[in-house]
Parts: sequence; C-alpha cells; structure tokens
Amino acid sequence: MAMAGLYRRLLPCPPAVDFASSQGKQLFLESIQNGTMEGFYRLVSYFQTQSEPAFCGLASLSMVLNALAIDPGRKWKGPWRWFDESMLDCCEPLEKIKVRGISFGKLVCLAHCAGAKVEAFHASHSSIDDFRKYVMKCSTSDDCHVISSYHRGALKQTGTGHFSPIGGYHVGKDMALILDVARFKYPPHWVPLTLLWEGMNYVDESTGQSRGFMLISRPHREPGMLYTLRSGG
Amino acid sequence: MAMAGLYRRLLPCPPAVDFASSQGKQLFLESIQNGTMEGFYRLVSYFQTQSEPAFCGLASLSMVLNALAIDPGRKWKGPWRWFDESMLDCCEPLEKIKVRGISFGKLVCLAHCAGAKVEAFHASHSSIDDFRKYVMKCSTSDDCHVISSYHRGALKQTGTGHFSPIGGYHVGKDMALILDVARFKYPPHWVPLTLLWEGMNYVDESTGQSRGFMLISRPHREPGMLYTLRSGG
Repeated sequence: MAMAGLYRRLLPCPPAVDFASSQGKQLFLESIQNGTMEGFYRLVSYFQTQSEPAFCGLASLSMVLNALAIDPGRKWKGPWRWFDESMLDCCEPLEKIKVRGISFGKLVCLAHCAGAKVEAFHASHSSIDDFRKYVMKCSTSDDCHVISSYHRGALKQTGTGHFSPIGGYHVGKDMALILDVARFKYPPHWVPLTLLWEGMNYVDESTGQSRGFMLISRPHREPGMLYTLRSGG
Repeated sequence: MAMAGLYRRLLPCPPAVDFASSQGKQLFLESIQNGTMEGFYRLVSYFQTQSEPAFCGLASLSMVLNALAIDPGRKWKGPWRWFDESMLDCCEPLEKIKVRGISFGKLVCLAHCAGAKVEAFHASHSSIDDFRKYVMKCSTSDDCHVISSYHRGALKQTGTGHFSPIGGYHVGKDMALILDVARFKYPPHWVPLTLLWEGMNYVDESTGQSRGFMLISRPHREPGMLYTLRSGG
C-alpha cells in the first residue's frame, strides 16, 4: 500500500549542493574563513518552516525580522512579543495569502509595515552585479539580510515562484546559501549565484513583472514603533 | 506608555556564550575544525521555535525527528509528511501538555511512538562522563542527537524545567551548544557541560525524579512504520 502524500523531494544536485553534504560543509567552512558567513549566525538562529504551503514569503520575512531583533510591539503567545507568519497581518489578508501566496510588492509593503527598512530590487531594473554586491554586503555583516524571490525552475527544482532568505556567500565559487523555508521539501542548499539570478528574472505571470530581491535591515527609528502607530496602540 | 509583554530576556553571560557573539563564533569554528559539529548541519536545518510556552519538549523532539529524516507516515499540511508539535499527539493529550508541559518519561514514550530509537538516561542513574561521551558521539556524526532536560536555574536563566537539543560540543572548553527552542526568549548559546549537568540533576517536583538526557536515532526498521501500524494506516 502506498503511503499518502510526499516525504520531501530529492534536491537536484547539481546545480545545488546540500548544506549538510561533505561538499556543502567544505563550502561553509571556506566561507566562514573568508568572512562571508557573518550574517549566518543570527539568521540560522531563527530559521523556520513555512507553516502553510503558500507562506514562503511570510516565513522568509518572519525569520529576517527575528534575526534583526525587530520588536513586533504586540504579543504573540504568552507574554512574548515575537514574529511568526500569523503576526504579519498587514497589506494583504492572511486567508488570501494562504490560497494564492504573496506578490513581491506586497511582501515589501509587509516588511515596511512590520517596522523594517526595506530596499526592493526588481531583476528587470537591476543587474547580477548589483545582486552580488548586496549578497556580499549582508554576508559580511549581520546588519541586513537578503530575501530572494525566484522561480524554482532555474534550479531544476519542482514548483514555481518561491521566496527564501540567503544565509551566506562563497566568493571563490560564486555560490549563495539558500535557507529554503519549505523545509518539508528541500534542505538548505548552495546554488550558483548566476542560476539564482536567472530564476529571479522569470516573469511572475500574476503581476507581469520580473521577480527580484529585497534587502532588509533595522530602521533608524525605534523598532516596532511604526507598526504600533499603524495599529493604533 | 509601557508596551505589553516581553521582548526576549537578556542571556546571562557568563555562564553562557551567545552563539552569534565573536566568542561564540570562535568556539564554533574551533569545534568544526575539531570534528565535533558534525551533527550541527542537519539539526540546525530543522531548528524551530516552540509554538506554545509549554511545548519545549515537543519542539525539541520534532526538530530531531526531522533532522533524522524520520517519516511521520501521515500528512501534515498539503501533500507533505512532516513533523511539527501538532503531529506528536501520542502518549499525552496535546491540550494537557499545553497547560503543564511534558515529563521526561512521556517525551521518551512520544519519541518511540513517532518511530525513533530512544535511549533515556536519568541524571541520578548516569554520570557526567556518560553524558559527555554521548554528547561527543552525537556531535561527531549525524546519526543521533541528544535532547537535554534541565533546570534553567543552573545556568542563571529565568524559568524552571526546560528541554532543548544539543547542537555541538567544544572539547577544549568542555562546552555544549544549546539550540534553545524558546527562541523568543534566548538565542542559541554555548554553556559549560558541568553546569548543564548540574541543571539535569535538579529534581522535577512533579515526578520526584531527576531530569536527564535522551539519545535519539533512526530505528533499524523502516522509519515511520511503527507509527503507521499504531495509527492503523
């Protein structure tokens, strides 16, 4: 009798390298020694699984907000203020996101609304050199994190549009570590930056625009204040 | 106006060392180079936040089951088979755990029920040398993971009994990396093994027994089969 449902997908390698493989560990160690895993420590500390099949954008943003220690300004559970997807109820109704996912533009809106500083780049109005520059910038510090919006097809993965944060960079191999929030599907993996960029250049059929990436950092103002004001608290 | 609730707690250092501090990064790099972070890669790939204030045991077990690629044998969400706390509905009702937490013995029961191999050690019937031996064993491979059940008081942390998985070991400093599942409270941190052992020796008032640790690994039989049989699938 076949068991119902799916237990993960096999990660297509190449082009990916599994984070926990011996080759993945080697890339990781070299990147640490090269100073391009400085953002990894905080980000991986808040690595999470998207809690719904269409919540990749929300989970990616929630991880980054927690990694940047941005205070949501209101309680999550018990006495604790904390981000998870359920706290990101701004810009687009959660019930709608559950069915259709979220667009790049709406996720940028949500990051602002949650109190972060966001710089958004559509692939069609940016370049791979820009992308590499920002990935480097956020890999060599823990002041910012990059969320990439890409089509999985470019990486030979099943599925279509996806969001995930980037956990580090290997200069010599020009590879980025994707902390894939669909952890029930694929483990974290290294991919060639050029292919990830290709995936970001696929046009999103629902908006007619290319995908892209966003740089998220702490605002200069008190974190959480913006959200608090908007929600009238 | 004071904001309602709490935004994290300050990690008492010493005795702990924050994973993402420069000292924490140094311990991490030395441990990688020494071969005692081999279990880290898979475990951190499934690091999760306990979804309720009393779900530390369930979240620790869920991480370890996912890290060992144990198949729950039934669907979680969408088509995916995957562990989170809601899938651990065996041995003790989830509603009861939500209020009171879970005992060491019941968590061992739950690990068996979920299809894992478990070896459980009460601190009062074990020794720090045994504990160190098993922490070493699971830090130098990714075949097993250790969940520690301890009293936070030994580490000068607020709170009482807690469960968390151990993510690695530093031989020279005799320190263990705790991947604390209460991520809304403390970040991952290194602690002296001797103090963690002390915390495991505190008696649990509700059971009258000492706490302890458990070693979790894949069973020799087909993963998930035990659960499947029990649930009649």
